[in-house]
Amino acid sequence: MGWQRKDLLGLRNLTAEEIKLVLDTAVPMKEIIGRKIKKTPTLRGRSVITLFYENSTRTRSSFDLAAKYLSADTVGLTASSSSVSKGESLRDTGLTLNSMGVDVVVMRHPASGAAEYLAGCIPASVVNAGDGTHEHPTQGLLDMFTIREKKGNFAGLKVAIVGDILHSRVARSNIWGLTKMGAEVRVVGPTTLMPPEIQQMGAKVYHKLDEALEGVDVVNVLRIQLERQQQGLFPSLREYSRLFGVTQKHLGLLAKDALILHPGPMNRGVEISPEVAYGNHSVITEQVTNGVAIRMAVLYLLTGGEANALSN
Amino acid sequence: MGWQRKDLLGLRNLTAEEIKLVLDTAVPMKEIIGRKIKKTPTLRGRSVITLFYENSTRTRSSFDLAAKYLSADTVGLTASSSSVSKGESLRDTGLTLNSMGVDVVVMRHPASGAAEYLAGCIPASVVNAGDGTHEHPTQGLLDMFTIREKKGNFAGLKVAIVGDILHSRVARSNIWGLTKMGAEVRVVGPTTLMPPEIQQMGAKVYHKLDEALEGVDVVNVLRIQLERQQQGLFPSLREYSRLFGVTQKHLGLLAKDALILHPGPMNRGVEISPEVAYGNHSVITEQVTNGVAIRMAVLYLLTGGEANALSN
Amino acid sequence: MGWQRKDLLGLRNLTAEEIKLVLDTAVPMKEIIGRKIKKTPTLRGRSVITLFYENSTRTRSSFDLAAKYLSADTVGLTASSSSVSKGESLRDTGLTLNSMGVDVVVMRHPASGAAEYLAGCIPASVVNAGDGTHEHPTQGLLDMFTIREKKGNFAGLKVAIVGDILHSRVARSNIWGLTKMGAEVRVVGPTTLMPPEIQQMGAKVYHKLDEALEGVDVVNVLRIQLERQQQGLFPSLREYSRLFGVTQKHLGLLAKDALILHPGPMNRGVEISPEVAYGNHSVITEQVTNGVAIRMAVLYLLTGGEANALSN
Repeated sequence: MGWQRKDLLGLRNLTAEEIKLVLDTAVPMKEIIGRKIKKTPTLRGRSVITLFYENSTRTRSSFDLAAKYLSADTVGLTASSSSVSKGESLRDTGLTLNSMGVDVVVMRHPASGAAEYLAGCIPASVVNAGDGTHEHPTQGLLDMFTIREKKGNFAGLKVAIVGDILHSRVARSNIWGLTKMGAEVRVVGPTTLMPPEIQQMGAKVYHKLDEALEGVDVVNVLRIQLERQQQGLFPSLREYSRLFGVTQKHLGLLAKDALILHPGPMNRGVEISPEVAYGNHSVITEQVTNGVAIRMAVLYLLTGGEANALSN
Repeated sequence: MGWQRKDLLGLRNLTAEEIKLVLDTAVPMKEIIGRKIKKTPTLRGRSVITLFYENSTRTRSSFDLAAKYLSADTVGLTASSSSVSKGESLRDTGLTLNSMGVDVVVMRHPASGAAEYLAGCIPASVVNAGDGTHEHPTQGLLDMFTIREKKGNFAGLKVAIVGDILHSRVARSNIWGLTKMGAEVRVVGPTTLMPPEIQQMGAKVYHKLDEALEGVDVVNVLRIQLERQQQGLFPSLREYSRLFGVTQKHLGLLAKDALILHPGPMNRGVEISPEVAYGNHSVITEQVTNGVAIRMAVLYLLTGGEANALSN
Repeated sequence: MGWQRKDLLGLRNLTAEEIKLVLDTAVPMKEIIGRKIKKTPTLRGRSVITLFYENSTRTRSSFDLAAKYLSADTVGLTASSSSVSKGESLRDTGLTLNSMGVDVVVMRHPASGAAEYLAGCIPASVVNAGDGTHEHPTQGLLDMFTIREKKGNFAGLKVAIVGDILHSRVARSNIWGLTKMGAEVRVVGPTTLMPPEIQQMGAKVYHKLDEALEGVDVVNVLRIQLERQQQGLFPSLREYSRLFGVTQKHLGLLAKDALILHPGPMNRGVEISPEVAYGNHSVITEQVTNGVAIRMAVLYLLTGGEANALSN
């Protein structure tokens, strides 16, 4: 059974089979990244636009390189240099890109639901690279890929997500994906940064870090966005760090061979200590490689993948 | 008879034969855009710089994709990230790009005549992607391509251009091109936005929208630039829209199967109503596809086109 | 004997043999730039990131084109659009890029020593494209390539570097490289813009332009950075120009067939007069071509060059 969807908008609506298909497809893609000659002609003649209404180094570069390793053409558009500043509607921007022959639009947008809206306007594929506080599916998939690679499977695994759950699309995509695959997901963070609906999503809510980390196989440490403090959502960085920063002393609470994940970029010394970030539980740099592999898999599946047999 | 010019600076100085050659060349180019594998090796090893001193999503992306569909290498430079901010002269910037082995410089610049000046400084080809209020030849050509595709030819066609004619390089390129090919061009807009020389260019000037639209085959609705209002050039957006906005009620005035064009990005509800913009007379999204095809044709013709037979 | 280093951080630590190897490798690279089809498959499947924490047109475009002429994939990151604005450490940014499978990181950074620091953090190759006032090795190498091409060799050549030596990484890379190859290097500029350590680097210090230029074979005119005046480092542009601007009247002082170099972008009429900049001693536009050739050579050597025999 192959991939049937036009778009990748979130993990909430994917089936376990679809998630597994993406993860499986990313396995050979990762091998390409490890090669000296990182290039296959698979998506030659396909074009990918990265349309970013919010800044990002890693997500944007990751998609860009993923497309290039597959020989697709890429064009980057940012809000500051685009018609957005001229007040063009998202629908019109989408129709324009679609009419230029673009196969995939990878979009990051500050509004939750923007990717789904765009996907409904155009025949081209849309990949949600983060929409408001809603979802960031390729981040969720790369986290899951990283976990599966180390742990074999998800059933019975305990995963703790630490930090600002309220504003985190990374947390939401992880929760939808991981619970669907049979993992137990715990979330922990300040009460001011905990959304009420999170329990209905299937996650267990904790407010004390030590309790949440007890016996978990995976800790996914979210980036704290420094502007939240100014909004009064937590007292101070020092206070946040004291209560929810993951440090060396927490490692003893975890299950054997537990993994530490972080979507990056890290505020070292705030939500995570350098010892943990660069320690031997950390798979943070591997997440980056896996992110490229997942994005290669997603671009491949969305464009049909039939060009596979093309010679260069 | 082939293409002899080094540059494409405007439609004013092109002959009817040259315009026809570009339009004819764009026909097979459009087929490439429609293919699943949008790639020919035609311009492999040629390099195209997009040098934009003004922001633009669509023109810049359109040239970028056009170059990539033909396998050229592209590099993008914007004023904000360039030596421009260091006060370098346009001549020196041009000489630098030329010395890097660049084959074509695609430039947008706020000063009328900038493209012609640059073209005189360097052996590399220059494509004017909009210079002040002077010309935007590839926009004119894509509008003409769109019209010709639907209407067969230009002789006897009535075309109305609506809006801020004074500041519009799109209007000027359309007028030069369309009159040269035998079309009748009408222009209509506020008297404060109507340049005195427009009559000598061969266009008929109207000040009432209804009169201008009477029996026309094509309506090209210009984008109103919102900053003009602050300059006092028209009373208010509401007033502008009431007098010159093209809406459903105007469609009855037009000839049968009339076309609605707009260069984008649109201010929907100001110069054009959503019903007209997305209605069945509108060819606005097709203009975008045709824009890529025209730019492919222009890049192809300027670089000699002899690489055609290259295998990949 | 081939290239053994992982990185290119500066000319100070290179041997004369290593410098010669880069210059020799750039000779066939320059031929590629002169061809109509500027493309070899040499670095196909390799990826190059340009990571610029300071703006630059020419250096960035030069590396970008150099990589593309060799068929490498390139991705550009600038400080304004990157995680830098999110406070990510340089080490983490480097680890991220490295984990994405990037082969070479070309970095410009305002801090002296930044490139060396990055190189110590990651296995990927690092090319210093300018770090503070420290070094700009590819500029030094392209200046040397230009000189060698015209003068045959360096032994006994007299080279004067004119301007703001204090803040110039270009001056430092030139001094290290040229003295190592046996040239005599003179530096001249305002006493406020002359670093004390320059004499220990092997350069002779002058404070009068006429004396410094007497009998020299090469004049390398540095760009004066206009903000230095506001810092009170020289009295006024007019005064600077009167004392240290290189003009027609200085040409008589030089040796026969002397060369005028400038790293660009020029402030014409300030540090160099238009007659000199565009006169027949000037090799300024050739420097630009040579810069692409040098960067091709550097990318080639750093990536092993073994892919050479790859067919496309």
